Formats: sequence, C-alpha cells, structure tokens
Amino acid sequence: MDINTAKHTLDEIERKQFAYKYVLATVMNDASTVAPPESYTARGTAFGILSGETFKLQTSPELKEAVYYLYENKDEAGPEYFRRAELLRENIRKMENIPIEEYMAYSELLNTAHVAWLNAKKNNDFASFAPFIRKIVDTQIRFASITDPDKDPYDVALDAHEEGTDREYYDRFFDEVKATLIPLIAKINEKEQPDNSWLKVSYPVEVQKKLSDIVMDTFHLDRNHCVLGETEHPYTNGACSQDVRITTHYYENDPVASVFSVIHEGGHANYELHVNPEYDYNVLSGGASMAMHESQSRFWENYVGRSENFIQAFWPRFRETFPEQTKRHTAEELYRCVNLAHPSLVRTEADELTYSLHIIIRYEIEKKLFSGELAIEDIPAAWNEKYKEYLGITVPNDTLGCLQDVHWSQGSFGYFPTYSLGTAYSAQILDTMRKELDFDQLVRNNDLEPILNWLTEHIYRFGCLKKPGTYVPDITGKPFTAKYYTDYLTEKFSKLYDL
Amino acid sequence: MDINTAKHTLDEIERKQFAYKYVLATVMNDASTVAPPESYTARGTAFGILSGETFKLQTSPELKEAVYYLYENKDEAGPEYFRRAELLRENIRKMENIPIEEYMAYSELLNTAHVAWLNAKKNNDFASFAPFIRKIVDTQIRFASITDPDKDPYDVALDAHEEGTDREYYDRFFDEVKATLIPLIAKINEKEQPDNSWLKVSYPVEVQKKLSDIVMDTFHLDRNHCVLGETEHPYTNGACSQDVRITTHYYENDPVASVFSVIHEGGHANYELHVNPEYDYNVLSGGASMAMHESQSRFWENYVGRSENFIQAFWPRFRETFPEQTKRHTAEELYRCVNLAHPSLVRTEADELTYSLHIIIRYEIEKKLFSGELAIEDIPAAWNEKYKEYLGITVPNDTLGCLQDVHWSQGSFGYFPTYSLGTAYSAQILDTMRKELDFDQLVRNNDLEPILNWLTEHIYRFGCLKKPGTYVPDITGKPFTAKYYTDYLTEKFSKLYDL
Repeated sequence: MDINTAKHTLDEIERKQFAYKYVLATVMNDASTVAPPESYTARGTAFGILSGETFKLQTSPELKEAVYYLYENKDEAGPEYFRRAELLRENIRKMENIPIEEYMAYSELLNTAHVAWLNAKKNNDFASFAPFIRKIVDTQIRFASITDPDKDPYDVALDAHEEGTDREYYDRFFDEVKATLIPLIAKINEKEQPDNSWLKVSYPVEVQKKLSDIVMDTFHLDRNHCVLGETEHPYTNGACSQDVRITTHYYENDPVASVFSVIHEGGHANYELHVNPEYDYNVLSGGASMAMHESQSRFWENYVGRSENFIQAFWPRFRETFPEQTKRHTAEELYRCVNLAHPSLVRTEADELTYSLHIIIRYEIEKKLFSGELAIEDIPAAWNEKYKEYLGITVPNDTLGCLQDVHWSQGSFGYFPTYSLGTAYSAQILDTMRKELDFDQLVRNNDLEPILNWLTEHIYRFGCLKKPGTYVPDITGKPFTAKYYTDYLTEKFSKLYDL
Repeated sequence: MDINTAKHTLDEIERKQFAYKYVLATVMNDASTVAPPESYTARGTAFGILSGETFKLQTSPELKEAVYYLYENKDEAGPEYFRRAELLRENIRKMENIPIEEYMAYSELLNTAHVAWLNAKKNNDFASFAPFIRKIVDTQIRFASITDPDKDPYDVALDAHEEGTDREYYDRFFDEVKATLIPLIAKINEKEQPDNSWLKVSYPVEVQKKLSDIVMDTFHLDRNHCVLGETEHPYTNGACSQDVRITTHYYENDPVASVFSVIHEGGHANYELHVNPEYDYNVLSGGASMAMHESQSRFWENYVGRSENFIQAFWPRFRETFPEQTKRHTAEELYRCVNLAHPSLVRTEADELTYSLHIIIRYEIEKKLFSGELAIEDIPAAWNEKYKEYLGITVPNDTLGCLQDVHWSQGSFGYFPTYSLGTAYSAQILDTMRKELDFDQLVRNNDLEPILNWLTEHIYRFGCLKKPGTYVPDITGKPFTAKYYTDYLTEKFSKLYDL
C-alpha cells in the first residue's frame, strides 16, 4: 500500500457507495411519494439485497486497508482524505463484527416495521406495532453489545446520531431547558391567546401551492437541484449537492402549516445543496450531523421564518395569494398567530416554545426502554402520563400519542434529542451572526442571500469535513451552552405574551 | 455441480439481478417524472456504476456454470428452470465478450445522449444530436461484431428486440402492409373528414384526470400495484407484477389523447400485472417480447378502445365529465373523431390506419444507417423525403421530424418495427378470441374482465416462459400472417369512410 493506491481505492469504493446511496435514496423517496401501496414486498426484497451489497463494500478488506493506511498517514493524506478515513474507520469498527445476515434481516425488519406502523397509526392499534419496537430495540441492544461492549446501549444510540453526546450530556442540556420552559409556559397559559380563527377557514390546497413557490424563491431553493413533493410527514432526502428532495403536507384549514414545513425542509435542503460539490461522491457529502442539520432547518424556520421581520415581509404576498381570507387582518396578527404558544398533542404541529417538551418526553421514554426500566407494552401509559405531567394535556388515543412519529419504525432511537440540541446550537450561532450582519434588516427586506452565504461560508460548504461539535465553539468563540436558546425563547415569548 | 446447487445459484443471483432491476427502474421512472432537472450527472454516475455491477453478475462464472448445467439437464431442470437457463445463456453469450469498460461507457453514453436529445428536440438542432447517434450506432455495430460476427448488425438489433426476426421477415411483413395501406389511405384522402372542432376546445386538465380514473377502473388496472404519472411521452415501466408505473400526457385541447394513452399504457401494465407472481424475482418476469407487449397495448387501445362498442359504453361517462363541451354531440361523432384517419407528422399522435407507415419510415432509415448506405447527417433529408413520398406531407422542422422520438437516444434501434408487428399479432389473436367470447357484447356492456381473464389465461400468466413467436400459432392454430391486420383495417376504415 502506498498513498496513491490508498487514495485511489478510497475514491473507487466511495463512488460505488455513492451509487447505492443515490439509488436507495431515490427508491425511498419514490416509496413515500408515488409508489403503488402494495409494492412494498418487491421493494423490501430489493432493499434487503442492496443493503447487503453496501454492507459488503463498507466492510471490504481493500477498503479497510486503504482507510487504515490513510488514517495512520495523516500528513500524507491531507485533511480531506484523513477525515474520510476517520469517518470510514469508525463505520468499519461498528460494522465489521455484525454478521451480514443479521444486518440484512434488520434492514428487512425496518421495511416491514414501517408498514406495520402506518397500519397501527391508522387503526389506533399500538399492540400490533409493539412487537416491531421490541425487535428493533433488541436488535439495537445486540448490535451495541458487539460494537461497544463497554458502553450503555442508549449512549451508543445517542452517539450514533450525534457524535460525542450521551445521556449525561443530554440530561444536563434538557435540565436547563426544562428549568426555563416549564415556568415560562405556565405563565403564558394564564394569558389570553390571539384569535386565529381566520386561519382555520378554507385555504384551497391548489392556491397554497403558490405559497410554496414563493417560499422556494424567497429562500433561494434552487429548483434545478431541489424539488418539492407531498407526503403525510414532510422530510428532506438529499443524495448529494446535485439532487435534494423535500416534501410538505397541505392542510386546507391551516395554510401556515405547509409554509413552515417548506421553510424547515428548505433549511435542510439549503445545507445539503451548498456542501462543496467535490464531496458529492464521498462520505464528506451532506450535513455534519443530525443536530447540525436540525440547527439549520430550525434556524430558517424559527429564527427567520417566525420572526416579526419575516412576517412583515411575507404578509403582502400572503395577502395577495388569499385576498378574501386575509382582508380584515394584519401582519401583526399573523405574527402572533404563527407564534401562538400552547401545549398540544402532536410534536410536528407543536409551537416553537413547547416543542422541546415533546422531545424531552420521547428522550425519557427511549432511555427507559433501552435500560429495561420500561416495558414495550407500557409505552402508551408512560407517554400519556408525561404529556399530562409536562404539558398538562390528556392524550385521547395512541394515534395522537405514542404512534404519531415515524422514527421508531425506522429504528431511529436517539434521534429526537438532536432536534432540540440543533435548535439550541443555532441560537448561539445567530448571536455571532448578528455581530457580522444586519440580520433583522436583511430579513425585513426579504434579502436572505447574505444570510445563506454567511451560513455556507461558516457551515454548509464543509459538509462532514469538520466534526459536528466544533462548529459552535469555532464560530462563536465560546463553548456550547443552552443559555442562548433559553434567553431567546424567554425574550421572544415574554414580549409576545406581555409577561 | 448438482441440480439443487444449480437451481439455488440461479435463484440467488437472479434475486440480486432483480434488486438492481427494481432500483434502476424506479430511478428511471423518478428521472422522467419528478427528479430535479440538473440531477442527471449524479444519476448518470450512479447508473454507470450499478450497470457495471449488474454486468458482472450476469457474466459471473458461478452463474454461467449453473446456467449451462440446467440448460444441459433439461429434464431434471423442469420447464421453468430450463427456460430461465435458456434466456440467461443467450444473455451470457451476448455479454461475455464485451469488455466491461465498454459496456459501462455505453451506459453513460446513453445517459448523456438522452439529455442531448431533449435539448436538440427543444432547439430543433439535429446537428447537436448527430454525434450521439453516430456513437450509439457505432457501438452497437461493434458489439454485434463481437457477439454475432456472422450476422448483419441490424439483424442483430432486430433479433434483440424480437427473437427470431430479421430484415427478411420484416421486409415481407411491411410489404404486405404497404400494399394494403397505401391505396386505402389514398382513397380515404379523397373523402370528407368528420368535424372534430368540438374536441379542440378547452377540456381542463384537472377534469381530464377524472377520465383517467374512469379508464383505470374500466380496464381493471389495480391501483394497489399500478400508479399513473405524467410525462412528456407516456410509457410503462414495470419492475415486476407487484409494481408497474404508467404515465400519460394531458393536452387541454385534446381530451381523447390522454384517454388513449392511459388505455395503451394500461394494456402494457395489465400484461405485466398478470404475469405469474412466482416469476417476480427471476428472468421469467414481464412480457414475452416487445411485439407481444405491443400486441397487448394496441389490443386494448385499438381493438377495444377505438371500437364503436367501446365508444358507446364510454360516451355517457365522457358526457358526464364534460357536459358543456359535449352537449350538442353524439357517441357516433366521437367514434368517428377518434378514428379520423389522415396523414400526420408525429408518430405518437398518428391514427390507427396511418400508424404503420410511420414505423416503416423509421425501419427503412435504421436499416440504411446500419448498412452505411445513409450517413448520419443525411437523416433529416431522408426522413423528410419519405414522409413526402409515403404520407404526402411536408415536415416543417426536425423537432416534428426525425427528432420526435426518444428511442434512438436510448439506443433502441430495431425497436420501432415491433410496434407494427405486435399490432398485427393481436389482430390474429382477436379472431380466435371472438370464437370463444362474445367480444362485441362484452365491450358494449363495459364488461372487460372476461377479456382480461382470457388474455391472462392464454398470454399474460406465462411471462417469458414461452418463446414469443409461439403465441400466435399456439393460440390461433395457424402461422402468423399480416392478413388479419390488413383485413381488419380495410373493413373498419372502409365502413367509416363509406368506401
């Protein structure tokens, strides 16, 4: 092995990996948007087989030799090849001891679990989905016992979604968040809520689609590389900087739901679209981590989209699109309505203030599932109890309760906490951005390009080159703290509710 | 090698092949319907790499050994494994001598050629597409010189699209067709045409979509396994009997165009959907051949859809969907309008009578391209001359002339002739069906299920188990002849135009 052979081997195998990633991402996107409902058996078979092929590639001896050579020859490798080797080395370490049959069986399990979840949610039938959660959690605990025998399996799951995090890290973060949110929400609950009945009348979906076009343009989402589809749950699916798919969901009686979905998913998309295109065919492609990704979707959705300045700039276009429905109302009313803070049942519809409590509930349940303190069949009871305790609301059924999210059916335990963490990351990053850009004025002027460029310069272009935990300290010059996030929420909602 | 090992090896490798086929079909479908326009570089890279993987699978020594074992042990293999071995053996014979780099380069060439064709057609710029045709034809001639050094390369192309056919076969068939069509069309051209101006007013696309729903239901197209999308050129893309995609194109001023596209593609789809599901994961999946496939799309489109009985049954639903536009008209008028026969420029919009002349023109040009008698740059002149000679019309530009079809950009030389051949196959098959079913009455009653079941029993369920050339003789008890097709056209159009 020499340096050129090692680099060439890495390039070749990573290009193959890209090919599988590209087609599997496209197939998943197709499955969620247009595939015929009973095509899942064929797709599951194909998925299982090709997942096995990618598994073999990722654990091939040629790749391993090249990866270790580059990792051990950091100076010769240079920063990009070194980082690729570092990421691939960690992946090999995780995968090489998992028997391929188990890996493929797990892949097929997730495929059937997804369909089981869809049916369970539709029929409010937790019992039919419970065996899948059991199998998924058991498999993850088993895989963790192979890859990280000395670590707690939920710490392994947390670290898999956000490098460097564990229960201790999140416990501290969530304790700070809880300490601010619970009393703040309690105070707001005593206040009068704005009247949003004018936003609950009919806003025809075909016309709402024009708002999506406006949002796509405003946020500089390049349609040559990014298309918008429709699904029950909005998502972003990026194969590389050339091809990113986002989806939204239209509700006839809630025109802002889709607007904020497009802004949110558009934030994820803009991150992916602005990674250095040289990384397209290797592991540096895409966002640095789950939390870094969510920091960007939430940045655009909340810090930009739900700000008073953005709503002022957006109002004339909203008014023009729906002249009848809006004629007796003002931008100020829209601003208050899109920031209406009240405890609710469904995470994806939660307001900016109460959102993290939904996350904390899921985090606490997952933690106890992995430790064995909570039995699968007791999830609904635990869920409903926590919603009562933290948010003061009664969960009427599991469809609106513990069956609401797709994540567990996809094996994404340890994913939810990154949503809150990312939101807190971007609060701290915004504080620094404000020192370099006239953020408020740019948003008020609908001139978001300088903000997009700033984020590209400081975050997006790097893809996975930098470790996710380094962004906040590097950009802000300070270690990460929840304080910027809690201060932001306190200030914004105290003003909104005149506390 | 023993019989069980051979069967097991075949099953394993064919399942892998299925996985690649499934994802590549889905990616192609995605590319045609929803992918962002500038994602083709990424997709092309992925396609090239995975085509290389399927190439390796198809030519792997393990597969070859199993295939030859089963082929040589026909009795032990049984009819299904034997036919699979026979088909795979022919494929190996064709592929094993083509260097993988050339095969992958060809796959990438087709990807870029498709984009070049789209642009050339858009800009009426044949010169920009000509080098791609040159490279594709040269590559096919080179591949034919490797796989079939003793055969004419266009005969190889014809046989690749329809086993057992060659120039001699098609020359004889097309001579018979020409002998009937040219005088028949000449006579009709002297007759008065029905007034179809009422079908050229506005039929809003959103409402036309309801007609698609009616057609999907009428033709028993199972939406659990078959979805309808929209593309510039309608197509069918079936990955297996569980997952078939069809598309249509809506024209606001031509509501019947999409109706007949859905019926046509629905015919392809019903074939794929009714192949024995046990064949899903192997090479017996899908229709028996191009011509057999086209025999079914044309059967449903023309022999059913454009019949007087079908139009009578369809009329009340058409009238209900577009009450204003149709209120002064009758089923009889619609029947005459959907069978209006007149020479036109665009193959996909051609009527049933003149259609085969479009095919004959393409066939004659392809034949001369492969023999070197026609230079690439002379295609437009040759095309325009033949349209003048056979159809009596002047081609105003290449967009409406030799750039109109996607086929050449996909390397599908030798494909066009199967369209006419299939149409003639189904004329002969219909003659037999009429002896067993009251075809006219079933169509008049909108009761198409017995017809679908008859075709499933005699054709669809077999997939690729039987050789394509065996259907017409086996079903009808007679060798194939063009006579049923030419008799059908003569009778139908003589009556319509009162000759």
